[in-house]
Parts: sequence; structure tokens; C-alpha cells
Amino acid sequence: MSDKPTSGQKQLIETLRTRLGSGGIVTDPELIAPWLVDWRRRFRGHAAAMLQPDTVEQVQAIVREAGRLRVPLVPQGGNTSMVGGATPPVDGSALILSLRRLNKIRSLDPAAGLAVAEAGVVLADLHAAAAERGQRFPLTLGARGSATVGGLVSTNAGGMQVLRWGTMRGLVAGVEAVMADGALHNGLAALRKDNRGYNLDQLLIGAEGTLGIITAATLRIVPAVIARGVAWAGVSSPEAALLLLRRLQARTAAIESFEILPYETLAAALNYLPDSRPPLAGEHPWHLLIEAVESDPADEEPSSLLERLLGDALAEGEVTDATIATSEAQAEAFWRLRDSLSDAERASGPAVQHDIAVPVEAMPRFMTEAAREAEARFPGTRASGFGHLGDGNIHFHVRAPAGVDRERWQAEQGPVITRFVHDLVVAAGGTISAEHGIGQMKVAELERLSSPARMATLRAIKGALDPSGLLNPGKLVTLAPRSATP
Amino acid sequence: MSDKPTSGQKQLIETLRTRLGSGGIVTDPELIAPWLVDWRRRFRGHAAAMLQPDTVEQVQAIVREAGRLRVPLVPQGGNTSMVGGATPPVDGSALILSLRRLNKIRSLDPAAGLAVAEAGVVLADLHAAAAERGQRFPLTLGARGSATVGGLVSTNAGGMQVLRWGTMRGLVAGVEAVMADGALHNGLAALRKDNRGYNLDQLLIGAEGTLGIITAATLRIVPAVIARGVAWAGVSSPEAALLLLRRLQARTAAIESFEILPYETLAAALNYLPDSRPPLAGEHPWHLLIEAVESDPADEEPSSLLERLLGDALAEGEVTDATIATSEAQAEAFWRLRDSLSDAERASGPAVQHDIAVPVEAMPRFMTEAAREAEARFPGTRASGFGHLGDGNIHFHVRAPAGVDRERWQAEQGPVITRFVHDLVVAAGGTISAEHGIGQMKVAELERLSSPARMATLRAIKGALDPSGLLNPGKLVTLAPRSATP
Repeated sequence: MSDKPTSGQKQLIETLRTRLGSGGIVTDPELIAPWLVDWRRRFRGHAAAMLQPDTVEQVQAIVREAGRLRVPLVPQGGNTSMVGGATPPVDGSALILSLRRLNKIRSLDPAAGLAVAEAGVVLADLHAAAAERGQRFPLTLGARGSATVGGLVSTNAGGMQVLRWGTMRGLVAGVEAVMADGALHNGLAALRKDNRGYNLDQLLIGAEGTLGIITAATLRIVPAVIARGVAWAGVSSPEAALLLLRRLQARTAAIESFEILPYETLAAALNYLPDSRPPLAGEHPWHLLIEAVESDPADEEPSSLLERLLGDALAEGEVTDATIATSEAQAEAFWRLRDSLSDAERASGPAVQHDIAVPVEAMPRFMTEAAREAEARFPGTRASGFGHLGDGNIHFHVRAPAGVDRERWQAEQGPVITRFVHDLVVAAGGTISAEHGIGQMKVAELERLSSPARMATLRAIKGALDPSGLLNPGKLVTLAPRSATP
Repeated sequence: MSDKPTSGQKQLIETLRTRLGSGGIVTDPELIAPWLVDWRRRFRGHAAAMLQPDTVEQVQAIVREAGRLRVPLVPQGGNTSMVGGATPPVDGSALILSLRRLNKIRSLDPAAGLAVAEAGVVLADLHAAAAERGQRFPLTLGARGSATVGGLVSTNAGGMQVLRWGTMRGLVAGVEAVMADGALHNGLAALRKDNRGYNLDQLLIGAEGTLGIITAATLRIVPAVIARGVAWAGVSSPEAALLLLRRLQARTAAIESFEILPYETLAAALNYLPDSRPPLAGEHPWHLLIEAVESDPADEEPSSLLERLLGDALAEGEVTDATIATSEAQAEAFWRLRDSLSDAERASGPAVQHDIAVPVEAMPRFMTEAAREAEARFPGTRASGFGHLGDGNIHFHVRAPAGVDRERWQAEQGPVITRFVHDLVVAAGGTISAEHGIGQMKVAELERLSSPARMATLRAIKGALDPSGLLNPGKLVTLAPRSATP
């Protein structure tokens, strides 16, 4: 539990000092401190130094020398992991390898629909660079002002537009990475077809920095949005919501977001946000936020498209009410409600949260039944899910009974509730990590809920590519089998 | 070089006899013979038996027992590999594991847009099953009457619709496979988001059966085509062709195929096919076959869409001439010309063929320059490429000088020419295998043209998942480093 460097770390820092230059090594504890804690403050680690390369060659030198001296490295971008994936170990055994200074957009080619961005490029900066050229990178999420390309690729990030554009895996055309021995894997050439053996790019996407350090990625970009239409609709059930989504998708490819939330989650947000107003009159058990975009002048204007399609749905009784934002301000007000759901719930009391997915068609039933089962098993709690219905991915929250002590309830009930919810998810053929990854938070649950054969395979891959276990230790999968109880 | 079983093979057959039943083990040399040779008759192997499981449990039993007895297995589907990927070794050390009897379509769900097909399902049968439900599986290729799902997934197959739908990798939502120890990897649940560690599905796609035996896959299906439009156009150069493609794509998402061929390749096809007619009057240095499809009643009828867009291109001087097929018969005649190119060229004399890709934007220049360089280096040859311009993937052929002895020229000049072409491809940032894989044909070239670090990584993955090297031995990457000269 020390912030003092070990002798190996000291040697490493000494070896690298000339190579990295003055800005390349940070040892001032005050400067390091913010990077030792995850942004939700659930994980805290120690590290005697933060290495900040600004060239790929420097990353190679760091990884090579760290390998020689057996110093573990924790790669870090914007430090916005939801599962402690970028927080160093508590024992101070590792150094932080920050990729934030590796932040060039090497190229941006609208004709080819491709951009090459280094690991440290912040998502919002990528958005801005694309917009300048009349393009966009069609993935966004709350942390866009901090999250970096390297982290987004390494965690196969999702977000609000997966329905149309897929996760990062679908948007990455190639990866450049430094492997555990310091060798460079250069997969940046955007080959639409390439069957030259095992696909290392695909293996590195979502590997959370445990198999190699991503230094850059070739990303798909698409023409900028000309206009967007944002609608709010009420439906009777998650089943009705999915039916509506399928009907919309059969008639247009323009739907980019389709978010579901129950009435009481909306009520909490309305309560939490000053000056907010209910989008619809009357009470509706379930609410939908729908966005359609126009990226081609030949397309129908998205607001009138939504008006027409939702008008039909209203006439057919498929939605109970619907409204289209008539201004960009109103569209933003709708999105603000959606974006505040987590904060609003946190403000209204303690809750245990789960980032889970099941097959899309199974989600409506899961939402209803899992909530009922969780509430029955934990009397006094309220359970509900909201989020990306079209991806089969919701954030499933179990809120504490009124009046409990927050800290104590979280500590005592949290793990029990999580195991219960995860068991339901696995029984429904789903995943205990839809978009946040495993990090350190879910290592034990991954172990508990995966077959020994699968864990052996994950470990074999880790052992093959990082035999000394020096890349992001303690995340995703550990080299030595650990016991099921953390 | 024997077809007699080794003692390990005998034991394996004995152990499996009850388990697999009478149809499950073939030892009659006459029945095995057709499966010992690849369909282009370039590779010939030996195997004392062919195991033909019809359940996943039987595949598990085979792999487990083969592992115990150290008997290598060569997985085989339709045996349509272009690179000897399904042909057993010449020394008879392996048995064939045929997946053809594992041929159920387990489910086909138009609402979810998903089908689960076992490894032995023939592509044409999958097409038919989807069509019966008003759907289609949007990947097709010449071998569709023989090629199976397992092989298509294992080789990350491409084909004629990659431009719009991507390769198999983009169409596979999940994989079921038997790993080297007989354990089942079940990735069939179609989760749109799943970040539970390394993505084994992605690793198995394109692994050519060297990391696990694929037994089934969840595949994306899309609504059936309502109508198609097929056009033939002449352009002045590959550069003009790519410019045209980009302009078409900017105005419609309906383009599914965009095939390029030089004039003399067309001439060879016209000469080869009885009753064929030149699609265009006059001479044009480069020809294009373009297909657009309508899958939504709201879309523009594709023939009139192509007529409008190509009319504009003609007016702008971007194409030198163009014609739209006015009947399905004419559309088929256009495609027959395209499909006959390889056969026509083979009939017109010996040629060395290469399945290569470079980044799409670099392809026009590559086509021109590589042809010039190859012809300069090998006097008397004629070099040209044709194929999937929009994917950056062409089949690059170097044809023999007139009058040479076919066999002798192929044997003496083939490897030299191939190395020369591959060097050009690598220099252009491309791949020596765009869609055919490595198999046994390109093992030495992969080794020669990959960095030692990359080969070490491929070997580490192979060693981690198939430590005894029993799965499809000699294909893609060998466990022990082999010398660069085959």
C-alpha cells in the first residue's frame, strides 16, 4: 500500500527518463492522485509514477523495459471506466501508463470514410474534427468529454447509437497496438477483406488493455447529420415498445436511438431536474425516447418521418400517446431527461445497478419478470430497468427500501442482490456485462458464472499474449485461478 | 503416405464406433477418395477414415477422444477451399472430421433477423430456407451449392455482396464450437452487446478450424429482395470506376455489387461463353457490373434508380457508356459473364492467380501499376486484375506468354511470380489473402511476409487453444516454426 517505487520501478523510471523527456514521467503524488481513483470513487489504487509517452516508439520502449524489469503497467485514457478497469492495484505494484499525450488525429478521409486516431484522442475532439469535415463518428456516450479512443476500443464501448451503428467493434477498421514484448502490431490499413490468420484487431477490441496497449485505431466515419427528429411516446408495456421498434425499423433505416424507461423512473427525473416538464399529458406505464436522423438530402425530414410513423402507430393503438420535439431546445430537453436518469435515481436513494443484456426479443419479458422476482426476493425494494431496448441492453436497478442506511445497505445487500440479478440474466441467456466490461468490479462474478472451460480458454489467451501478466493486472481475467469468493 | 490407420487411429475408430453408429464412420477408400483432394485438384492427402457426426455431442466425443489418443483431425464441410484448407495431410496422420451431417437449421426468426444454422448446412439450402420465410442471407458465392456454414464462418468468407453486407464476420452474431479439449463454447445467444472478456466468437471466425471445430452459428438475415437492377457500364480507368462508386454510394444505399474487369478479360469471357454478346457497343478499357436491390417497398425501383444515376454519370462524362438490363434474363446474362471470368481465363492459357486486397482508395493505382511492373519483370506475360473493386479486393492474374508449356511454366514461374506479386501487395499495405484464407497453400508466404513478432503471436494463440496441434494440422500456422522455403 505504498506510493514509494519498488526497486524495479525505480530502475524502470531511471531507464526511461532520457527517453521520455521531462513531461513523460510524473512522480509528484499530487499530480498522480486524481488518476488513482475511478470517477465513481469505488476503486482506489496506488502508483509511484505515471508514464506519459507521446510517441508510439516511447510506448514500445516503456512496455519492453517494463517487461524486462517485471513492472506491471495499467493503461489509462480518460479514466472513465464504470468497472475500475483503469485503476491501478492497491499494492502499488504497477505504474500507470497514460496514453493521453498520444492524441493526434493522424488522418481523416471523408472519401474513404475513415479516420486514424491515436489512443489519447478524446471522443469529443474526434467528434469536432469529423464535424469540421462534414462528417461524424457515430458513437457517443455521457463521458465523451473525457473518454479516449484507446479506452473506447479497449472496452468495446457502446452508447446511444448502437441500434444503428453497432458498438466500437463495428466502427473499428483496424488497430495499432504494442504487444507485451514491445513489438508493434500494425493493423491500421483499412482492408475490407483480410484473411491472414487470427484477427488480432478483433482480439484486442474489448480486451481492456490486458493483451496489448492500443496506441491508435482506424475508425469508420459517416456523413454528418443534416437534421434530427426526436420523439417521446407512451406505451403500455415493454412488449409493445419492441413491437413498435420492429415496425419502425421495417419502414425506415433512420432510427438511431430507441430508449425505454418506466413511468416511475421518469417521475424521479422530473423531480430531480429543475424546470423539467413531463413530455406527455396523462400517465403511461412506459415511456420511449426515439431519435431519427437524416444524413442524405434525399431522405425524408426526420421530424415529419417520425410524425407520420408514430401517427400511424397511434391510430393502430400501438402507442398510447406521442409527441415530436418542435425545436432543437425541446429535443435537448427530452435528451436531458434521459441523460439524468442515473443521477436522478442516485439522488432519490441507494440503488444497486447492473449493466446487463439479454437477446433483444427476450428483453421485454425479462424486464417485467426480473423486476417482479427481485422485488419478491428482497422485500421493500423497487426494481426496474431502463435504457437501450433495441440493443437488448438495460441498466437494471434495484432501489433500497425507504429509510435504510445507505452505506450499510449497499455493503450488505449489494453483493447479494447483484448475484441474484446476474443469475436471472444468465438464466435468460444474457450477459453480466453489456457495455461496461469486466474491469476489476466483475472479475469474481465472471469467474462464478462462466464455465471452467471458458475461463480456461480466457486464461490460455491471456497467458499466451502476456505470459508475465504485466498488462493491466487484476482486470478481466487473472492468470492464476482465483477462488470464487472475492 | 498410407491409407492404413495408425494404431492410435484404430483405437479412436474402435472407441467411437458405438457412439457414432453405422453412418458415422466411413472407412471405405472409395467413399473417402473424393474428400482427399481439393476441388481444384492442387492438393491431395490421405486419411484412413472420415468421421461423420450428426450431433454436437458426437463432435465433442470425437474431439475429446482424438485428443486423448493424439489423432489429428481435419474438419471439412463442402470441401470448396481455394487454398487446400480442408485437405488432410499427405502422410495419413489425420482423420477427416466431416460436419456435413450436422445440417439442421435450428431456428429462423424473421422478427429478430436471426437464423441458427449448424455447420453442415449448405449455403444454397440456407438461402432457400430464408426465402421461404420472405428473408435472405445476404452472402453468396460461386460454391453456394457445396460450401457449408461451418466452412464459411471458419474462412470468414466474402463473395459478391460484401460491399453492402460485409464478410461473414459482419453476418455472424454468435458461434458454437467444440474446443480442442472437447468442451463446448456456446456463443449462439445473439447479444448485441456483450463485453464479457475476450471475444472467442471473433477469434474462431476465420481461424480455419485450427482453434476449434465450429458446430453452429447464429447468422443475421434480412428481408428478401423485392427487385434488383443490374447495369453494365464502361469507364476509362479504375480511378474513374472508384469515383463513380463513391458518387453512387453518396446517393443510395442500394448498391450491393460493383465488379470491375478490363476489356481483355471481358473479351476472353465473350470468346469462352457460347451465345454471349458484348453488353456495350464500342470499346471501353474498363467495364463495370453494378447491382442495386430494393428490399423496402418505399425504395425507388432499382432499375430506374440505376438508370437515373448512371444517366447523370454519363452526362457528366464519368462513364463512357452504360446499359441497364431490361429483363431478368439479361441481368443473368450479365452475371454469367462475370461468373465465367476465371474459367474463361483458364481456358485461354495458363495463369498465376492471386486473391489479394489493398485499401480501397489505393486499389485503382495498384491495379495499373502492379500490372505494369509484373509485365516488365516477366516479359511476355499479361497481368490484370478483376473483381470486387468496392472491397479493395481483386483477383490478380498473370497470364503466361504465348506458346509456353503449361505445366512447366506453372511449376517454374508460378512461385516466382507469386512472390513478386505478394511483395507488391505488401508494399501497398495490402493482404496476400483477401477472402480465401491461408490454408496450406499460403502458409510459407504468410511466414515470409509477416514480422516474426506477428508470427510469434499467431503461434502463441494456436499453442494456447490447441496445445497438441491436433486441429487442422498444417493449415494457417504451424506450431513449430517452419523454414521460409517450403
